[in-house]
Amino acid sequence: MIELVAFDGDDTLWHNESIFSMTQARFTELMQPYVKGDELDDRLFATEMRNLRLFGYGVKSFTLSMIETAIELSDARVSAEEIAAIIHAGRAMLEHPVELLDGVEDAIARVSATYPVMLITKGDLFDQESKLARSGLGDRFASVEIVAEKDERAYRRILDRRGVDPEHFVMIGNSGRSDIVPTLALGAWAVHVPYPLTWAHEQIDESMLHTHARYRRIESLAELPSVLADL
Amino acid sequence: MIELVAFDGDDTLWHNESIFSMTQARFTELMQPYVKGDELDDRLFATEMRNLRLFGYGVKSFTLSMIETAIELSDARVSAEEIAAIIHAGRAMLEHPVELLDGVEDAIARVSATYPVMLITKGDLFDQESKLARSGLGDRFASVEIVAEKDERAYRRILDRRGVDPEHFVMIGNSGRSDIVPTLALGAWAVHVPYPLTWAHEQIDESMLHTHARYRRIESLAELPSVLADL
Repeated sequence: MIELVAFDGDDTLWHNESIFSMTQARFTELMQPYVKGDELDDRLFATEMRNLRLFGYGVKSFTLSMIETAIELSDARVSAEEIAAIIHAGRAMLEHPVELLDGVEDAIARVSATYPVMLITKGDLFDQESKLARSGLGDRFASVEIVAEKDERAYRRILDRRGVDPEHFVMIGNSGRSDIVPTLALGAWAVHVPYPLTWAHEQIDESMLHTHARYRRIESLAELPSVLADL
Repeated sequence: MIELVAFDGDDTLWHNESIFSMTQARFTELMQPYVKGDELDDRLFATEMRNLRLFGYGVKSFTLSMIETAIELSDARVSAEEIAAIIHAGRAMLEHPVELLDGVEDAIARVSATYPVMLITKGDLFDQESKLARSGLGDRFASVEIVAEKDERAYRRILDRRGVDPEHFVMIGNSGRSDIVPTLALGAWAVHVPYPLTWAHEQIDESMLHTHARYRRIESLAELPSVLADL
């Protein structure tokens, strides 16, 4: 019955939010002379949301948002050295090794033995291609789609192009907002693998999802093959 | 004989390099207290090339490279206000209206009446999708591919996926490096429409192209329908 299985990338296959979180801690340290942690977090998030329409997702957007927030919150007292340190922190994110989550390689190997498997990830094209290449998982996927936003329209386009009906499609990911809600809305299946950290932008009230007939929730990808076999 | 016609976006369908060039003039003005124009241009280009591997193409990368160059060339004397002005200039690029080149709408309408037409553009996914949407040309293309780098491998993947032989494919674009050389190398046809400005990174010695049997050169897209009819 299932004809296509798609995985999300960030925080489903490899660690991502933990790297943002680590960088944000470094940013807080750098901004200590000017502002307290809580206010900084709120203002950085507000800057990111304001910039999203223009910048999209990803590390470069995040770096530009950190610089803007630093200038605003310091009343332009932040020094060029401190801004250089922010750029350095952004660059370090892009150079950070891609670390797979536990059980990922085995789960993909097992699932791809039974179903065509693809990657659907959102964000910066260059970052995502680079992470996929460095993950060593590139050959595992029959195809890869990197989209600017994972909404119902994006999923519909991906399925239409492949002639797959939503009821024969399963999406696997950590984000209720990007991986689960739009695919359930389309009539597809969704397997939720929560990650310990969720970016505020991706947070939604998940309680109504849990009773959905095509929703499954697992703690780790190790549980995936048996969940798929039971759909 | 021709089964698929693809257009490049930046500087083929809409103005792009002129917006970068305008921004660079603004950057030169901002950096006047610290450095002369020529040295600034050279150092900015060197920073861009150093960052390309990590940042990829696009406005966000360019903005980060301007900030880094400003900090380095001013020996960290550049002020937070000046850095804010650089970010403002980057943001203005993203908000700049998409201006089609002369004859584009008519050429695409005529060509798409005869051949399946697609867009193949490189760079930042979010920028490119936004530009395509704002160009009003979205509905003209049977499909769109936004790639991180337009090399032989990328074109081969696009053609393989569609089951099109290179000899039945024509690429139309302004960049010798990205649109012409890799497609001729694959065995496809290439129609070159030079733009008055070319970014240093895209400049190549084009003299050897001109005698290639599958190379055509036109001054404007208005000449395209008759060139395609003669292939």
